[in-house]
Parts: sequence; C-alpha cells; structure tokens
Amino acid sequence: MRTLRVNLGDRSYPIHIGTGLIARAGELMGQSGIAGKVGIVTNPVVAGLYLGAVEESLRRAGFQVTTVLIPNGEEHKNLDSLASIYDRLIAARFERGSSLVALGGGVVGDLAGFAAATFLRGIPYVQIPTTLLAQVDSSVGGKTGINHPRGKNLIGAFYQPKVVIIDLDALRSLPVREFGAGLAEVIKYGIIKDPELFSFLEGNLERLVRLEPEDLERVVAESCAIKAAVVEEDEYEQDYRAVLNFGHTIGHALEAATRYEALLHGEAVAVGMVQAAILSRGEGLCDEETVARIRRLVEKAGLPGELPVGVGLARLVEGLSLDKKSTGGKIKFVLCRGIGEVEFGWLTAQQIIARLGA
Amino acid sequence: MRTLRVNLGDRSYPIHIGTGLIARAGELMGQSGIAGKVGIVTNPVVAGLYLGAVEESLRRAGFQVTTVLIPNGEEHKNLDSLASIYDRLIAARFERGSSLVALGGGVVGDLAGFAAATFLRGIPYVQIPTTLLAQVDSSVGGKTGINHPRGKNLIGAFYQPKVVIIDLDALRSLPVREFGAGLAEVIKYGIIKDPELFSFLEGNLERLVRLEPEDLERVVAESCAIKAAVVEEDEYEQDYRAVLNFGHTIGHALEAATRYEALLHGEAVAVGMVQAAILSRGEGLCDEETVARIRRLVEKAGLPGELPVGVGLARLVEGLSLDKKSTGGKIKFVLCRGIGEVEFGWLTAQQIIARLGA
Repeated sequence: MRTLRVNLGDRSYPIHIGTGLIARAGELMGQSGIAGKVGIVTNPVVAGLYLGAVEESLRRAGFQVTTVLIPNGEEHKNLDSLASIYDRLIAARFERGSSLVALGGGVVGDLAGFAAATFLRGIPYVQIPTTLLAQVDSSVGGKTGINHPRGKNLIGAFYQPKVVIIDLDALRSLPVREFGAGLAEVIKYGIIKDPELFSFLEGNLERLVRLEPEDLERVVAESCAIKAAVVEEDEYEQDYRAVLNFGHTIGHALEAATRYEALLHGEAVAVGMVQAAILSRGEGLCDEETVARIRRLVEKAGLPGELPVGVGLARLVEGLSLDKKSTGGKIKFVLCRGIGEVEFGWLTAQQIIARLGA
Repeated sequence: MRTLRVNLGDRSYPIHIGTGLIARAGELMGQSGIAGKVGIVTNPVVAGLYLGAVEESLRRAGFQVTTVLIPNGEEHKNLDSLASIYDRLIAARFERGSSLVALGGGVVGDLAGFAAATFLRGIPYVQIPTTLLAQVDSSVGGKTGINHPRGKNLIGAFYQPKVVIIDLDALRSLPVREFGAGLAEVIKYGIIKDPELFSFLEGNLERLVRLEPEDLERVVAESCAIKAAVVEEDEYEQDYRAVLNFGHTIGHALEAATRYEALLHGEAVAVGMVQAAILSRGEGLCDEETVARIRRLVEKAGLPGELPVGVGLARLVEGLSLDKKSTGGKIKFVLCRGIGEVEFGWLTAQQIIARLGA
C-alpha cells in the first residue's frame, strides 16, 4: 500500500492506494479519526459486489453501520436522491460526529460528499472509489455536488474527505469500456503536467488494461499526486485548478449535446482533449507532433478523438457559452504548448468554429 | 456609521452599522469587491418596504439586479424554496462571480446564504438584515441552512458573507413583538460575555424600545462584536461557539413542542434563558440574585420566562434528546456562573426534570 497526502492545513487527508484495501476500510478509517455511526452511500450494482465486505470491515472496527442505496446512474445525482439521504440519516439519528462513506463511482462520490457537506452543516466523509475515473479524479480534491435539470454540477460545495481508500482490486469488476473512460483522465494528467507519465502510457497501455498491479498502482498514484498538487495550490478553483479541465470544455458540451447518452464522461473528455490539441495547434501554441501523439494515445486506449457524426460543431459551440466556466461571452480553454505544459486561453465561438471546422 | 470586522483569514468581512445604509448598499458592496450580477433574495413583506431602495442603490452602483421572492414564513425555509432560488439564478445565467443579497430576517438570510454556499460550489453573498434578531445574531457568523420536516436547520453549511450591512432604520417598520424577540438575543450576549451590556440593558431598555439611535447603535454593535469574537475563536462550532446557545437548548425544544406557532424564536429563547439560569442555580453554579436579574430583565423586555401552560416538562425534555447538540443521551447545556460568565454542562433528562419540576 502507498499513502499520499493532500496538504490543505486542517483539511489535509491521506490517500491510500493498494490491493485488498476494502477489507481494511474500517481500520484505515479509524486511523483517520472516524468513529461511531457511519452511513454507506452506494448503488445496487456496487452494493452487490462490495457492500458486504465494507460492512463487515466497518463492523469489525466497531462502527455502527447504516446503508443508503441510491439508484444507479447519473440521472439520479439530483435533489431527490440528496433528500432521500438526509431522510435516512435523520431516521438513523445521525449526529455531528457521525460520518458518511461514498462507495462507488463519481455519481455516488459527488452525491455522498455533498450530503456530508450539508448535513448538520458538515459531517466527515470517506471516499472508497470503485471506478478508475473516481480513483484518479473525482474522489480526490473535495468537489462535491449534484446536477440541475439545466446543467451538471450546478449545485455543490468544496468539501474535502477525511480519507480516500483506493482498492485497485475493485477495477477487476469494472467494464472494459469504463476502464478506458478512466484512462482518459490519466492521459490528461500526462498532458497537463507529466511528460514521463505520458510516455509510460504510450509504452505500457496494454499492461494497464490487463490490470498488472504494479503498473496500475504506479499510474493511479501518479495521477492522484498530480491532482493533489493542483488542489493544494488552488483548492477553490480561483484560477489554476482549472488546468484540470483540459479536454473538459468541449467534453462537457459534447456530453450535453448527446444528452449524456452516447458517450461516457471519459470518452467525451478524450474527444475534447484531441480537439483542444487541434485548437492549441491552430493558435500556434504546439506543433503537429503533439497533436498526433495525443490522438494516437487516445486511440490506443480505445477512446474516440473526433466529434461523433451528427453532432454539429455550431450546436456544440452554442452549448459552450452555457458552461459555468464561461465569462462575458468568451470561452475559457486549457490549451497545450506540448506534452506536460498547458496554459489558459480565451476563445470566441467564431474562433473555435474556424479552427475545428477546417 | 460604525464598522466592525470579523477576522477569519481570507474569509474576513466588515459589518457596517448605522442609519440610512440601505440607500448606500450598492456603494458598500462595491467597497467589498462585489460586482456584476446580483440576486436579491427577499420576501413580499420586506420587498414592499425596502426592495425599491435596495434595487435603486444597486443599479446606481452599476450592478445588474435580479430579484427572487420567497414566500414569507419559517415554513418556507425548505428544499422547495432553495430549488426555486437555483432555478432563478440559472435562468438569469448567474456565473461564479455573481452574488446574492439576503434582504430580510433570519429565514431569508439562512436560505439565501445556503443558496450562495451551494450554487456553483459557492458564490459571494451579502447580508442586509431587517429584523433586530437578524441584525444582532443570524446575519453574522456564516451559519446558513434550511429546515427538514424532522427538524430545524438540519441541512446547511458554514459559509461567511462578504459584508453585512445593518441599517438601524429598518427597525422602525418592525412589529414591537418582533423587536422584543430580538432583545432576547441581546440579553443573551450580556449573560454570556458582557456584564456591562447587561447592566446597560437593565437601565435603558425603554430608550431601546423607543429606538433612540445612539443607544440602538451601541447595543447592536456590542452584540455583533461579541458574536464576531466568538465566531473568530471557533468558526465551525467545534466547541466554544456553542456558548451562543445559552437559552437555546430549552428554547429549541419549546419551539418544537409548540409547533413553532405559539412563540417567536426570541420568546422561546427568553424562556430557555430563565430556565437555564434555574438549572445553573440547581447545579450550584450561580446564586439566586443572578436568576432573579435574568428573570427581571426578560420580563422588562416583555418576554416570557416561564414554560407556557400546557407544555409538559416531560414532553419538552423528550424533545431535547432529539436536539442536534445532544450526544450519547446526555444533553449539553450552557450554564451560567453569573452575569457575563458561562460554561458547558451535561445533564440527563432526569436531572433536568428534577431541577425544573420542583
């Protein structure tokens, strides 16, 4: 097991990464000062796989366990599910010292984290991410929230967990397509900050897909370390943290344009990364080889790089201006100068259409 | 105009106290770095009195103003009203730099503050409290939240405003009974921390009720200063901040037992303060004269000191164990050693019934 630390003053916390950690969840939570009543928030699919083991580990460590099941799927990351969590915690007489555990992917993590942020004005919570995407991205950094019918994550809070427990064994049950979608975020970390990680992925992608434990641990740990470093520098996304949105501006618009049905988040981000590289090249920031390397690695990971047939560029760009990162009509992009080096740029809708429509 | 400061590092903010400040709201907000789109959250009663003046001041200072009306009354401090605020902000395309203004009493302040805490993971907000209770208590310190059918303020966040603008002129429109209820919190500050304030109230209550500007400004400023000092020491109510709950433990239970219909919050707190003094005397902490002074000042302010006829002590104490400050069956009380000196004590239901039932 490796342990990283996210250093945020009195909101600091460890990230444990390794195999067999779900069976040690209770022990690791105790080490982080969690005690008493714990509510495990999960969905029926993840519950069928891991709930028994987590419950057993927690009970053995002396916790009083309540389980809150949320229906599976992004469409349930909403106010109704949030209200149902509150109801259960109140029925179980949760107090200020009680805690939540988010057991699952990004939906469960965001929802449980936001419930923890807002129940009794904030109770502790623990992330036990079971998808690659959640392990390398959403479980670290304290972004919590729910969707609004008009847009994703419009309601939420910055609220850090007390500990993140990443059990790499959980990836064995992950569908191949979801594993690939998680790889998109790993590729992103290479592009924004770590040319060595990018090169390693270029040479060892097959070993990762086969879940070779050492390679997997290395890649997950390096991804979490980059995320932690960015969050440490700009916890509340005043500015710099937005580098994590490389590929996400077009990615989010693409998800919205396809009604969150055609593409997984990571797949949309993959398209967004290739398109952001093309924009960067168009702005004269990077060379053709950088665009080509990103496109090749994305394709090698089985991810899409081009806009899907039927999604018009104009519609996509219109959606961009609704993004919560847009200001005053211009759209903020993370652009790349090369592998491992990114910077912010502001582009108008016309500029984007001219660069990508060519 | 007097200006106090709540010192909380990068969450510090000023409290402006004086007359004629509503007309200067835009200017004062600009000084605190607020700009762009502003949503004024208020209710129809307060809107009829002050919305025009606030809107005019904000527009003159260059803000783009949206108004969000919430129905009047504590029963609307709920998830439905919160959702209606989100909807309006999204329709008006609020961005991360946009702000909210809470114009009204505690309900509006708590609700607008929680909306600000959770919209786009947190946008700035401003408190313009128009009741005495909100001016001396709820507008300062960053407690925001909504009620759940099973209890008050069970959902919320600690989230500080960017500036508090207290216009004493707003008290001229306040019903006398509500003014008295606000005085309960002022008396509380005297008991927990300021014997001089308590003595001043004993000698000058009539002048306050007549809204003599100098006395009012002094008392509101001293109350805010005490609240600010407590919040500075323990922003997230880990421990010490709970001294502000003197009179509130029984007060909350009494409000719940009378279904929030018979008594205003400050009236219930007044009963709670007298009863907490009796408990303190019973525990041997304070003398009879302390109990008598608290009872006399409460009665002089036109506030109740005794449990209302028909509210059984047993039912009340049963409600106490549901309070979110209870832990492990014992009930946490703020007890007084004398005027200006309080401490925490833990009492069982049996002890409370024995002391108060005698």
